[in-house]
Amino acid sequence: MTRADIKLYELVLDNGRSASPFVWRIRYALGHKGLDFETVPVGFTGIPKILGGRFKTLPVLTDGETAVGDSWEIAAYLDAAFPHRPALFHSPGEYAAVRLHDEWQAWHVMRKLFALYALDIHDAARPEDRAYFRQSRERMLKGKTLEEFTANRVSQVPEARAALMPLRNQLRRSAFLGGAAPNYADYIALGALQWVASVGTLPLLAADDELLRSWLERCADLYGGIGRESGMRTLFE
Amino acid sequence: MTRADIKLYELVLDNGRSASPFVWRIRYALGHKGLDFETVPVGFTGIPKILGGRFKTLPVLTDGETAVGDSWEIAAYLDAAFPHRPALFHSPGEYAAVRLHDEWQAWHVMRKLFALYALDIHDAARPEDRAYFRQSRERMLKGKTLEEFTANRVSQVPEARAALMPLRNQLRRSAFLGGAAPNYADYIALGALQWVASVGTLPLLAADDELLRSWLERCADLYGGIGRESGMRTLFE
Repeated sequence: MTRADIKLYELVLDNGRSASPFVWRIRYALGHKGLDFETVPVGFTGIPKILGGRFKTLPVLTDGETAVGDSWEIAAYLDAAFPHRPALFHSPGEYAAVRLHDEWQAWHVMRKLFALYALDIHDAARPEDRAYFRQSRERMLKGKTLEEFTANRVSQVPEARAALMPLRNQLRRSAFLGGAAPNYADYIALGALQWVASVGTLPLLAADDELLRSWLERCADLYGGIGRESGMRTLFE
Repeated sequence: MTRADIKLYELVLDNGRSASPFVWRIRYALGHKGLDFETVPVGFTGIPKILGGRFKTLPVLTDGETAVGDSWEIAAYLDAAFPHRPALFHSPGEYAAVRLHDEWQAWHVMRKLFALYALDIHDAARPEDRAYFRQSRERMLKGKTLEEFTANRVSQVPEARAALMPLRNQLRRSAFLGGAAPNYADYIALGALQWVASVGTLPLLAADDELLRSWLERCADLYGGIGRESGMRTLFE
């Protein structure tokens, strides 16, 4: 059932790991659908050089002649193009509710994670990508350096941990965020934590965070263990 | 198609409005399923006096001999008992993702709303319920009075508004939180805002909050306009 004509253009760090929470979602989505794919590693500054410069962000997925960018577009494409594989979304309402979960996480968690790990991402990027990363992000930070932006990050860890409480509360009731089986809601949260695990030099989670730990362990076995390589145990202090 | 044997025990204020975001969800859920129901108004101190004291919270729904408490239990009951009516949840993944949305809202929004409106709820409660409400909530607040707890509430409004940004971001893409049609994700958020509209003496939303305003207007027409009575326009400054 190999579809060797699927390529996933992944944003990578100097250590070869995926440097994007959005790439991670699609890696899991491909696993969910049982689709093999070939990885094309791309650094931050390499994006304009692929596929004729048509895409400004990664992931990009190509399936033969078709190229799709944006993780939500890619997820919808995978369900449409492979309807006989396990669905990522079983109803329009599920798609919408999972997307709403993404909005909650983006606003209440991802911004806090960026404040913790902005400098770590820079340091973990390929050497040729670092100047671009610094310049583009420091512009977003209105002139603050990455060093200034993250100087007090240790004091912000408790708030970032607390912001994840909705995930823990959901996991009190079910093995996965998506219920008895994982769904794209899990991959969205996993993507964020894989991203942190790939770059972080400061543990995000407390050692006794058993709800998230046991969920991460269940997730580590998914789809041939694709998530194991990023060293999720570095997430815990 | 009337099911006059459904009764909804609602927590009510002195003005007769529903005083619970959880009751509001079920009012919308019954509308979604096209089920008629009879309202049984109950004050905070009346809960132990109904149905033999079997329930500690409202809503409680009775369908003939069956009594169900807890809004999530009731929602699941309605889908199971009325499978030929429009489903609240079309898949286990949709149920889980909507429930996750509820967890996000509970943690990142409802706590902020309670900090704004705790004293207003007291003041809007039936006179015979006020002492109980004050005593039970001040115990939760570790001895702070409701007045102390809400003294600086005006300064907390901007943060509460910002916490709702995920709803706005979702509504940039679709008419309802649930997509092209409303689903239980909408009823959860609506329930929170109906609750605020029913008790609040301080406008929660800015006058130019067009994304939430236009969604609330679309929602006001749902199911015979059940939401109109609570005066949602008081939500806006």
